[in-house]
Amino acid sequence: MSWLSNLKMSAFFFSMVFAISTVATPKVGYSMEMHNFSPYVDKSGNISLPPDFRISMVHLGSWLIPEGDASGFHDVYTEAKTAIHYRKTGKFPDGATIVKEVREAKFGDYTTGKKVGYASSNIKLWFVMVKDTQGRFHGNQSWGDGWGWALIKTDDVNKNTSTDYKKDCLGCHVPAKDKDWVYVNEYPTLVAPK
Amino acid sequence: MSWLSNLKMSAFFFSMVFAISTVATPKVGYSMEMHNFSPYVDKSGNISLPPDFRISMVHLGSWLIPEGDASGFHDVYTEAKTAIHYRKTGKFPDGATIVKEVREAKFGDYTTGKKVGYASSNIKLWFVMVKDTQGRFHGNQSWGDGWGWALIKTDDVNKNTSTDYKKDCLGCHVPAKDKDWVYVNEYPTLVAPK
Repeated sequence: MSWLSNLKMSAFFFSMVFAISTVATPKVGYSMEMHNFSPYVDKSGNISLPPDFRISMVHLGSWLIPEGDASGFHDVYTEAKTAIHYRKTGKFPDGATIVKEVREAKFGDYTTGKKVGYASSNIKLWFVMVKDTQGRFHGNQSWGDGWGWALIKTDDVNKNTSTDYKKDCLGCHVPAKDKDWVYVNEYPTLVAPK
Repeated sequence: MSWLSNLKMSAFFFSMVFAISTVATPKVGYSMEMHNFSPYVDKSGNISLPPDFRISMVHLGSWLIPEGDASGFHDVYTEAKTAIHYRKTGKFPDGATIVKEVREAKFGDYTTGKKVGYASSNIKLWFVMVKDTQGRFHGNQSWGDGWGWALIKTDDVNKNTSTDYKKDCLGCHVPAKDKDWVYVNEYPTLVAPK
């Protein structure tokens, strides 16, 4: 075998392995056919929870809400490539996913201080947003204003329990309307380190 | 070329590419020669801050400490492979890194609630721990009890300002001694999702 065919084979296998590693997205528990712009959206626009997002995604930032209906420790995640894209362009790319996990907060006295708050093991629910720059799901009340909006409960990670994002989701995001509905200023990961 | 040699070449290139992708760790800003067990430890045992860890690492969990010397929003990160290893074995592997970023906390009234706490853009300091199962740096006062311990300030991410971990670091970790000095029960990512 000549060095040239060796080289070509090397290039071929490199491309192949690179392609495999790029498209291999975990889909555990998914049975429906997915849309080609997001592995978490099926062809009719239903949004599922990204599996094991605490490992597969990066942390945008967290919130501790001490009381009220939304009380809890809120941890927010997105794809690494989405955060990098946002740092460069100030925009969320088509297909970007944002997951907010809401857990019951716990408070305790630690060596670092008193009444220290942190996330307990008790998950309350998840919010998922999927960026859609194309207006793909016209007429689907979970899609609009440039995003898909989902409220997912712990009994079924494949079911969006919200049927009208304007009623169930948008209200909380109105103050961030001019930042594409996301509280970007409170997410340190969207700024590159000095 | 026979199908067998094709298969062998395929296996070789796959291994090669896998190896390259596994060891490619960002080292921006590092000038010293690094130790082979961690890209963040030089040959004399000095610990540096992992560059852009909010993108390259996964989030273990966060703390809000409302007042006192350690007050602030504490975000904690580790390698994805470390979290996966811990889920399987209940142990931190040799070379595992834990980074705690301490930012000044801010509090504000949001649509989700009042006095909502989150991390501001003002970084106070970082703590870094590097797991060492081999006792590599005998006599170096930043290493002991199975870990390297660093306190890094914002003016030099390559300098561990602590010179004695027993004095500067260990005190806060004593209650977690039986969990290898880490507050593992407060880090949701160390438990696989159901």
